[in-house]
Amino acid sequence: MAKLLVLYKTPTDSAAFDAYYWEKHIPLAKKIPGLRKYEVSRAPIVTPAGPAPLHLVATLHFDDLKAIEAAFASLEGQAAGADVANFATGGADMLIFEDQAV
Amino acid sequence: MAKLLVLYKTPTDSAAFDAYYWEKHIPLAKKIPGLRKYEVSRAPIVTPAGPAPLHLVATLHFDDLKAIEAAFASLEGQAAGADVANFATGGADMLIFEDQAV
Repeated sequence: MAKLLVLYKTPTDSAAFDAYYWEKHIPLAKKIPGLRKYEVSRAPIVTPAGPAPLHLVATLHFDDLKAIEAAFASLEGQAAGADVANFATGGADMLIFEDQAV
Repeated sequence: MAKLLVLYKTPTDSAAFDAYYWEKHIPLAKKIPGLRKYEVSRAPIVTPAGPAPLHLVATLHFDDLKAIEAAFASLEGQAAGADVANFATGGADMLIFEDQAV
């Protein structure tokens, strides 16, 4: 399996972020071809030392790295990617990697 | 489900990190009570713009946030946590959150 993690930093307006994310972004992102599973964190995200500077972590699962490449190249992937600027007022980091159970 | 993500930044010696992680740290971490699934990324970790400043992402799955609290409080969890300083020469960030499939 391969994962795309999207780490959304704390936005200027968390309620507006959540409303947009659930109503608009999730339906868009669910159209991405090759998406096998899509998980979204519940607030809050914490660290052992206290609150994390993140509002939401999305985990998108694909069969392998090629499927993630194809997803980014697809029209649906490009639409979902472009949509991030509409709500991620704190910015977002994306991480892509293969995962193995140990 | 709840997750503990450990984001290991690029260490000074990746080969030494990997050897220690696989030989020593994984066996220690697998003893943590309540751990339901443990996933480790394969190198490299990338972003859409190029290499990520991370060497390894570990995802530890637990039933809920209470189980993560109990894991941190356990002797096995404390041993695994203390062991991180033995190999994570680039540092590590931990994120704890509940996850939901969408």
